[in-house]
Amino acid sequence: MSARFPVENGELIVGGLPLTSLAARVGRTPFYVYDRRLLDARMRELRQALPEAVEIHYAVKANPMPALVGYMACLADGLDVASGGELAVALDAGASPQCVSFAGPGKSVDELAQAVAAGILINVESLREIRVLAEISQRTQANARIAVRVNPDFELKMSGMKMGGGPKQFGIDAEQVPDALVEIGAAGLAFEGFHVFSGSQNLQSAAICEAQTRSLELVVRLAEHAPGPVRTVNLGGGFGIPYFQGDRPLDLAPIGANLASLVEKAKTALPNAQLVIELGRYLVGEAGLYVCRVVDRKISRGQVFLVTDGGLHHHLAASGNFGQVIRKNYPVAIGNRMESAEMAVQSVVGPLCTPLDLLADRMSLPVADAGDLVVVFQSGAYGLTASPTRFLSHAEPGEILV
Amino acid sequence: MSARFPVENGELIVGGLPLTSLAARVGRTPFYVYDRRLLDARMRELRQALPEAVEIHYAVKANPMPALVGYMACLADGLDVASGGELAVALDAGASPQCVSFAGPGKSVDELAQAVAAGILINVESLREIRVLAEISQRTQANARIAVRVNPDFELKMSGMKMGGGPKQFGIDAEQVPDALVEIGAAGLAFEGFHVFSGSQNLQSAAICEAQTRSLELVVRLAEHAPGPVRTVNLGGGFGIPYFQGDRPLDLAPIGANLASLVEKAKTALPNAQLVIELGRYLVGEAGLYVCRVVDRKISRGQVFLVTDGGLHHHLAASGNFGQVIRKNYPVAIGNRMESAEMAVQSVVGPLCTPLDLLADRMSLPVADAGDLVVVFQSGAYGLTASPTRFLSHAEPGEILV
Repeated sequence: MSARFPVENGELIVGGLPLTSLAARVGRTPFYVYDRRLLDARMRELRQALPEAVEIHYAVKANPMPALVGYMACLADGLDVASGGELAVALDAGASPQCVSFAGPGKSVDELAQAVAAGILINVESLREIRVLAEISQRTQANARIAVRVNPDFELKMSGMKMGGGPKQFGIDAEQVPDALVEIGAAGLAFEGFHVFSGSQNLQSAAICEAQTRSLELVVRLAEHAPGPVRTVNLGGGFGIPYFQGDRPLDLAPIGANLASLVEKAKTALPNAQLVIELGRYLVGEAGLYVCRVVDRKISRGQVFLVTDGGLHHHLAASGNFGQVIRKNYPVAIGNRMESAEMAVQSVVGPLCTPLDLLADRMSLPVADAGDLVVVFQSGAYGLTASPTRFLSHAEPGEILV
Repeated sequence: MSARFPVENGELIVGGLPLTSLAARVGRTPFYVYDRRLLDARMRELRQALPEAVEIHYAVKANPMPALVGYMACLADGLDVASGGELAVALDAGASPQCVSFAGPGKSVDELAQAVAAGILINVESLREIRVLAEISQRTQANARIAVRVNPDFELKMSGMKMGGGPKQFGIDAEQVPDALVEIGAAGLAFEGFHVFSGSQNLQSAAICEAQTRSLELVVRLAEHAPGPVRTVNLGGGFGIPYFQGDRPLDLAPIGANLASLVEKAKTALPNAQLVIELGRYLVGEAGLYVCRVVDRKISRGQVFLVTDGGLHHHLAASGNFGQVIRKNYPVAIGNRMESAEMAVQSVVGPLCTPLDLLADRMSLPVADAGDLVVVFQSGAYGLTASPTRFLSHAEPGEILV
């Protein structure tokens, strides 16, 4: 999984710089670094594999660093936000409100008013949201643009997280959507389409194809009840990236072929509709690294511990404490000893007073010592902002886009 | 577990105020609130149950809110910190450096220099730290005060977290301590004693008594190699609080009796030594609540979801994602409907776009709707700072001491 980053003279090259030079430029460790070249490359791969007619949106929640969102606002066809805070970042990044959508099950009245004022598309997730938006629209004379987020009657198989099917807090149950559409029509809101998000972090193309196909079929059925033409169909995301030993990268080819057939189906069934997929982790996850420095090398009862200045407080997911049932090691390397032949089984831990603070559990790594740089790959998504940075009151890590 | 908070007219009373009035005073939801009366009461119970000769220190990592640390600095006999950041909070809180200790496996050179300059006690966790402290002491002519943190050759049985026994990043292995003591003596550092921390969150008095007895026995054996008299013996903590259905509160009586016998033993074996226990969660955990407001009540395929403005981003532990292997519900109530007879099975979720954002999974609770206040008990420790507050870019929760 480190193959995306070149190696020269034993050092990982990130943004064109050897890692030790980059660390010197940042001025401190630990830090997160995201590489524009890899963001570009990933988007190129996607554009090549998927039909041109499908828009690719970036889900800001995966990584809301303002500089990165600014970059993604140019690369992607739109941004999806999950809070008023993310909406502000998206607008600051220069995204056109026309291309920003807002999903999330507990939108506050203030957030809904903010979204209406900004003129973005709101994916409504409950009857309450429809009523609040009707009230805001009437009061402010600014007609809310809305799509209905549907909780489908199926789930995305083999997903890291299931977000549709069965009872869920997300979206409006498919069977309740016709009634919701009547309310939207009665309130005179600007109906624009549907959003179906059935799951995330999936490495099985066949499961994603099936979910996309069923999502479009569901939308076509629901469109019969719509108060106006369907202009947008957001088929969600779910594209996974490999994290653990044995994980195989997602095969885009079958997804591209399936989406091409869905584009054809939509041309007749929903002639005004733009198909959209919404990706977070898949767009930015592999472009990012977390880098920390070994502070101490300790041997306790035969086991080697590389004690670093980074850990769980900066990278909760890599410690195995963010939704994982069984802890597995993220891909980890010693970034300034990439070609070392002297290997040893070592554990990488952080400075916190808890055994949870574990970045690598007994991995075979080049022999490392104080001063060396530990790299955690696949850290561009759900890293810094998904971590308890104030835990034990250590300094904030750096965060750069190169 | 809500028994510590009175109820009047159906409302939970916190800091002498009905919860809805308190929420109005805070001016927003969600918020954390810690109640001084309960901090007082807990310390009184402890002082009554434990021998006077044992000092009780507060471990700041459990909750570093400055106002609360200030209050605990007065109630407790000392503070333990786990980073340079916590050290600054402890000193700001007015703690005497004489009564502050610093433990943690990856202390940086800067943190060690800061600790020497402050004149606090440093629990050294590796030979490297001894060498760095020797160098700093020589350079600054300020002799580092140190205790040796020992990784014991046993573990605290039935603990939530094991922090001693076997290979660990914490402390110096018991069998290596004699060599470390020689180094400390040779470097002329100000040796003051030992620190043994074998585990945390334990509800079995017998296990805690056994660990404390064995810790003291270990320290007595190691003291033979010490370069000077043992002035302090920190026996660690480990006192748990009940979180889940079926958990029984810790019985302090046997621990008090056992500590009394250890005080007697220490009088002869270590006549200059002050015994110390160090508690975090046990001192503050039950004095705190997390309060959030219901934004939406949704029924999806027969299941009721109370969608709130708070969640995993503020209270990771209550969502079941902080070290728990199996998710269980924290004690949760509807704080303004404490005496309601109309109950229903409801799930409490947050506003995040992830199924992990779950505060109560299908609990029997008073029927609640938008505007009602959800309370999570047992939230005074490892709450706000142990949570990824920036996840999905929502606003910070409030935090008050009443």
